[in-house]
Amino acid sequence: MNKIAMKTALEENTRAVNQTLDRLLPLDSELPESRLEEAMRYAALGYGKRVRPFLVMASAALFNVPEERALRVGAAVEMVHAYSLVHDDLPCMDDDELRRGQPTVHKKFDEATAVLVGDALLTRAFEVLAADDTHPDSHVRIELVRALAEAAGPTGMVGGQMLDLLAEEKALDVAEVTRLQRMKTGNLIGFAAEAGAVLGRAPETSRHALHAYAHDLGLAFQIADDLLDVEGDAAVVGKATGKDGARGKSTFVSLLGTERAREQGRMLADQAARHLEVFDEKADPLRDFVHFVTERRS
Amino acid sequence: MNKIAMKTALEENTRAVNQTLDRLLPLDSELPESRLEEAMRYAALGYGKRVRPFLVMASAALFNVPEERALRVGAAVEMVHAYSLVHDDLPCMDDDELRRGQPTVHKKFDEATAVLVGDALLTRAFEVLAADDTHPDSHVRIELVRALAEAAGPTGMVGGQMLDLLAEEKALDVAEVTRLQRMKTGNLIGFAAEAGAVLGRAPETSRHALHAYAHDLGLAFQIADDLLDVEGDAAVVGKATGKDGARGKSTFVSLLGTERAREQGRMLADQAARHLEVFDEKADPLRDFVHFVTERRS
Repeated sequence: MNKIAMKTALEENTRAVNQTLDRLLPLDSELPESRLEEAMRYAALGYGKRVRPFLVMASAALFNVPEERALRVGAAVEMVHAYSLVHDDLPCMDDDELRRGQPTVHKKFDEATAVLVGDALLTRAFEVLAADDTHPDSHVRIELVRALAEAAGPTGMVGGQMLDLLAEEKALDVAEVTRLQRMKTGNLIGFAAEAGAVLGRAPETSRHALHAYAHDLGLAFQIADDLLDVEGDAAVVGKATGKDGARGKSTFVSLLGTERAREQGRMLADQAARHLEVFDEKADPLRDFVHFVTERRS
Repeated sequence: MNKIAMKTALEENTRAVNQTLDRLLPLDSELPESRLEEAMRYAALGYGKRVRPFLVMASAALFNVPEERALRVGAAVEMVHAYSLVHDDLPCMDDDELRRGQPTVHKKFDEATAVLVGDALLTRAFEVLAADDTHPDSHVRIELVRALAEAAGPTGMVGGQMLDLLAEEKALDVAEVTRLQRMKTGNLIGFAAEAGAVLGRAPETSRHALHAYAHDLGLAFQIADDLLDVEGDAAVVGKATGKDGARGKSTFVSLLGTERAREQGRMLADQAARHLEVFDEKADPLRDFVHFVTERRS
């Protein structure tokens, strides 16, 4: 798949995911609490690359999973991702006023609403996974719930956020930054890539290959993010750049320098692609995605 | 069961629930992110009546559910309750410095940690429900996840919190306060009372009876809370009293006056007990609990 085809595939994916999110996050403006629904939609349906849903869709396609099921799981992962951004942007956390080129939820609404929006999106994600429509087999649904909770909880994403907060006071080495990033973003990306195998009741070996792929992809993705923070243009990236440096945070780039970080990113990307060797050409979107991620400019 | 026996039963329940929470929220002080685990334990294991776990245990006992399963579900509900208190106490929400007689999480730790503690406890609750140890049948586990997400999410507890925030700017009538309280606290209490029936794969009629019981109990509980806010002594209640009045919030007491509110509470309590008529004396702890709740002084 060339770059243009990949871009089209991603846009098509984003459209389908957004339709699903639109359906799963209904707005009933007659309800007195509709402000919450409105803010949930603002947080989840705004601009975004829908990277995690794309991984769910692409991995589910390997096992001929009906698209509607993969879309629901993709939407659930996106809700979790969106909630983490809303809470991360809060004044007491990263204190960001701009996200994806738009005012963050606490700026657009208010802080209390932003706290509740995060809580509501996280809870709704589990509700979506647990519903019959996600998969007729309750074993599959409960495994999705278990794996998402593990990836997003204290030993995963939230634990990584805690490390990130603590890192503002303490310099980290490469091993520590790797662990932090694996927890903060890698685990959820890993869940997304594995979810297709769970939905398709694929053999353990396939699930492990996708896990290993996502593992390396996640770090490559983070390095690309760090490079954008140093080299990117805020107008293109859609959020403030140069933040990590200003805060003195340890990143792959601050520890390795841009050149070695870029090299490391390429190496991880190649490694990610190699884990897909067990799959045939059906895995090409996952292969192409690696390069799309590491070469992105925003 | 007389008052003393009830108190003993509740204390025994609290001890067992705390042991389970202690096990499900381990602390590994070697981990760099152990501050999160420490704060989660502070939030969930501190003083508290463990009302929701008691309801799970008492309803599970009706269907001879093994205690260990009910304790896990009780602990999960308590984690959700604890998370809601941590977020509710934040400066941007209710801005409380004292909870159950101790500094709130954001005072003891910091705001960012408090946001993450809430997120982590909520996620961990779903992880606990999804684990094999909670019930061997995945149908049961997924139904617990679905029902908890529904009770705690935007159409339940979080929606109720949103209404509560909005109520600071707008006077509510009795119907609106009833809906708010049902969403904010009633739904989770309802889940707790129904969970035993789910664990016991009890017939729908039993589940409905427990739901109706919890429905009325939840409101009676809330009225008792409102009365304590007006009449209680902060030292005994363990949190600031007189808050609702100071904020001009509409409550059952502000709308009905103390006498009619007390009457209403008694009526709801009687009604709650009547829903238990389909059960034999095994439901006595649930019956006695109604009176314990409405007559409590703290």
